[in-house]
Order: sequence, then structure tokens, then C-alpha cells
Amino acid sequence: MSMKIAIVGAGAIGSYYGAFLARAGEEVHFLMRRDLEAVRRNGLTISGTGGEFHLPSVRAHASTAEIGECDLVIVAVKTTVNADLLKLLPPLLGAHTQLLTLQNGLGNEDFLFRHFGERTVLGGLCFVCLNRIAPGAVENYGHGTITLGALRPEGNEKARAAAHMFSRAGIDCKFTESLMEARWRKLVWNIPFNGLSIAGGEITTDIILREEGLLQETRGLMRETIAAARALGYAIEDGYDDFQIKRTHEMGAYRPSSLIDFQEKRPVEVEAIWGEPYRAAERARCEAPRLGLLYHLLAGYERRRGHGTG
Amino acid sequence: MSMKIAIVGAGAIGSYYGAFLARAGEEVHFLMRRDLEAVRRNGLTISGTGGEFHLPSVRAHASTAEIGECDLVIVAVKTTVNADLLKLLPPLLGAHTQLLTLQNGLGNEDFLFRHFGERTVLGGLCFVCLNRIAPGAVENYGHGTITLGALRPEGNEKARAAAHMFSRAGIDCKFTESLMEARWRKLVWNIPFNGLSIAGGEITTDIILREEGLLQETRGLMRETIAAARALGYAIEDGYDDFQIKRTHEMGAYRPSSLIDFQEKRPVEVEAIWGEPYRAAERARCEAPRLGLLYHLLAGYERRRGHGTG
Repeated sequence: MSMKIAIVGAGAIGSYYGAFLARAGEEVHFLMRRDLEAVRRNGLTISGTGGEFHLPSVRAHASTAEIGECDLVIVAVKTTVNADLLKLLPPLLGAHTQLLTLQNGLGNEDFLFRHFGERTVLGGLCFVCLNRIAPGAVENYGHGTITLGALRPEGNEKARAAAHMFSRAGIDCKFTESLMEARWRKLVWNIPFNGLSIAGGEITTDIILREEGLLQETRGLMRETIAAARALGYAIEDGYDDFQIKRTHEMGAYRPSSLIDFQEKRPVEVEAIWGEPYRAAERARCEAPRLGLLYHLLAGYERRRGHGTG
Repeated sequence: MSMKIAIVGAGAIGSYYGAFLARAGEEVHFLMRRDLEAVRRNGLTISGTGGEFHLPSVRAHASTAEIGECDLVIVAVKTTVNADLLKLLPPLLGAHTQLLTLQNGLGNEDFLFRHFGERTVLGGLCFVCLNRIAPGAVENYGHGTITLGALRPEGNEKARAAAHMFSRAGIDCKFTESLMEARWRKLVWNIPFNGLSIAGGEITTDIILREEGLLQETRGLMRETIAAARALGYAIEDGYDDFQIKRTHEMGAYRPSSLIDFQEKRPVEVEAIWGEPYRAAERARCEAPRLGLLYHLLAGYERRRGHGTG
């Protein structure tokens, strides 16, 4: 009864959730590059407040051809290398293989649907803070909730089943009937805070909240995002911006994930977090001038750092 | 027949234009701080394509009280220290003293008018590239044109006379009946290029033009600036944005003055170039969201560098 699962992109997110599923008895295959030898030798180690355990023996692979056809493919690569999936995924895919992206931002489900769409496409939003502290070792800070849903309503049953599988494995996973609305709600936070934390000059969220001008721009960016989401049919309620700002006050001097990527010289997921929402707003004929400026500033930083943006 | 003139703020701009006026026989008094002793000892030296000469003996002063009442006060301090003028100027002012600001951006004439407005307030836009290469030594690159006008129509005659005085001294100076329109026209360039050159990650104008996204934002910022200017009654013609962009292509890898200030760790004139125009747009009920975001980003950088913004 166990599922054959491929984890494509065994960074922190892929290793963490894959390790839970493997511990629960699923047949989990990890596609690895950098950590392959270390994980073959020593397995995977999960530590932190959201679970501590060691898997001494892990199915780690150098290629997807080695893994072969799966029941479920979990995509956890950075969105900046999505184009690589066109070559990576085919060996994993049979007619009934399900695809689940745990990536950030907008456009990832659409990408999978566009290229592999005869299959069920699911998406999950991960609310978790992870850190790869050594090859094959992931530290977590707080439990990693997932909100999981299907791109299209006919996938809801499979999304529910996937959410159950995660829950059985010890992960707090909630099924949602409105995956895209959940993505837009997350963007209401990510667009201003991840963006201003970089473009503002490498600053934490408390500074954004403290400076009147930047708080005003945070609200402006949230309004533009909510307006775009509503134009696309996602019913985000009045006051959601206030709720997000209030919540952020409680986070203290928080370093958004994109700022961490930027400061660690890793690619920032510019297209997934700003580019796709900006283009979606344009298509919906919603003005989003602040989002556009922020997007183009960030895309320029990344281009000049020699990174792709997605 | 010579005029008694005080130059308040003898940085590069003040020293350069003051030296021309002194050479022409006007009684020019320089308020100096950093360069006072050097200039008292060695005078002023102007070099470069826009004029080469040495003034061995210069009236350099440590305080405006030492200078006393003048016919004309030329204000050339950085706009970021405008508040200091409230203490500096009074000793120079009689009932008929004229005030001329050669400062950047918007709001400087209004500031003088608000505090010393029973007198004639003039303004000049300097199109010049200057560099203080040593105490009392200013290098110029190309001739320094001034566009000079009065804040209010009743000052036009005095503005014309002041423009003549500069012309007689060998400076290409044009009188304008629409000083504020000239200021807004200059802002159509300064707002995008000075701003994006800093917020874009310390980049020159050729890079802004080369990156499609930043060029799009340049046009967006120009449109917002032109719309605000028009709402305030200044008739900027269609195609002025194209004209400015075309002109910028010819400038090559140009480093806008604000970027130079930023990189040399000097205060950036954030309020004069972005803050005042943004507030003027708001008062005119013009949406200027890109200008707002750019302004608040720049103000944040400056605040965190420990600089006032104006």
C-alpha cells in the first residue's frame, strides 16, 4: 500500500518532507546532486523543534532515470531552475503519476500543467523555516505546516488523499479547495516583505514596519496584490492587509527567505514571487505600479549578480 | 556699479560660479567652512573645459555676520541642510536683498519665500558637471549653463538683470519666465535616472536604458512626473519623455550626481528630488505610486546611513 514517491530537488524542503514520508513507510526516492554521496553513506538527519530523527538508509539517486516511474512526484527545486524539470521529470512519469509542487510563489502548478498536464497537478504551500546545516542534515524551527490542494477541481480527491498521507507521516497538512487563493494570500505577505527586505537595503521586517514610508509602501503593495487576486476571482476579505501587518509585528526582526537567499548569494525566486503576480495583474487589467517597480529592481539585481530569475 | 554678493555654501557650485562673478569685478563674499584657510592662503582655482583661471585673493569668511548686508545672496548649500539657512541668512539680508538659489530639485525657492519672502526670490538650474579636486580648486567638465528665473512674475525684471550679470561674467545664462516649469522638466530626468541609479544597485544610466524592465520603470516614472507637472499647470509637451530618453542614450555610462553623492558617502538630496515632487503630486491629486516607492526606498537608505534627507 505504500506509494512510490520521487523527491525532485532534495534541498532543505525536499529532504525534510521526504524524510517524514520515508519514516512513515512510503517508498521515497530522492534525486540528489550535491549531497548524494553523503546521504548514501550517512542517511538523512532531521533536527529541531518540528521533529528529530535519523534515517540511516535512504534511497538516494543521481538521475531520475535510475528512479523510474512513480505514483507521486514531489517537485521541490528552486523555481529559478524550473526549466530543468522538462528534462528531469519525464523518466518519472507514467499515465497516472501525480505531480505535487511544494515550491514558492505563483506559476509552478501552471508550469507543470502546461508540460505534463494530462496528469493530476497538486500544489502545497509550506509554512516552515528550514536550514540545511550539513550534507543530509536539515534543521527545522517550528513545525512545518502544509496547505495542499489541486490546481483543478477534478484533482480534489487526490489532493485530499495526499494531505492524508502527509498527516499520517506526522506533518500538519491541511487540504484546501482553493489552492490559488491560498497562493495569493501568501503573496500578500511575500511580495512586500520579501521584496522590500532586499530592495530596502537588506533589512529585516521590523525595520520595514518601523519606517513610516516603507510601511506605507507595504500597504500599497498589499493593496495592489489583493486587487489583482480579487480581479482573478479570489475573495480576499477587507482587513486582510491589517491582519498580515499585525501578524508581522509579532515576528520581530524576521529575515524573509528571499533576503536570506540574497545574502547567501543564492538565486532569489524573482519570477515566482514578483514576476508571475505582476503579469497576472496585467492580464487582469489591474494596475500594479509598485509591484512592477519592485519586480524590475529585483530582476535587475539578480541579472547583474549573474543569476537567472525563474 | 558692482554688486555685493554673498555665496552661501562654497562647495563646487558656489565656488565655481562665485569665482566667475568675482573675476568679472563683482564684490563676491564666500561663506566657507572646510576650505576657509586654504582659500584665504591660496585663493580659488578653476580648471577644465569650461574655463581655467586662478583668483589669488578671495573674500572668504567664516560667518555671515562678518559679511553683512548684501545686494544678492546666492544659496548653494546642499538642500539636505536647508534648515541651517534660517540662522545663516539673516545677517546678509536688508530690505532689498535678492535671494537666488542654485540648488537642486523642488521646494528651495518656496523655502526661501516662506522665510524671507518680502524679498525677491530667484532660482537657477545649473547644467554643469563640477568636481572639487582640492580645497579651493574646482574642476569643470563642459561649460556650466544656468537657466534663471523668478519665483513670482514681479521678480522677472530682477531675474533678467541677474541673468545679464552672469552672462557678462562669462557664464552661459538664460532667463526663463517659467522657472517652475523648468524645474519640473529637469525632474523628468532626475527622478528616474538619479533614483534608479541608486535603488537599482549603484548602476550607470546605460544599464538603466539597457535593461528592459528598468527602462519601462523609467518611462513610468517620467509619465508620473509629467502628469504631476501638468496638473500643476506646467505645459510639458507629449514626447518629452522620448526626448529625454534619446538624449540619455548619448550620455553613455553616465553617473548621475545623486549616485556620486551616494557612493562618496555624502547625503543624497532625497527631499528636493523625490520628496517634494511626490508631495506636490499628492496635493495635485495625481497618483504617483512609482515615485512614492522610489522616494521611500531612498529615504530609508539615507536614514539608515545616518543622513538627513532635506
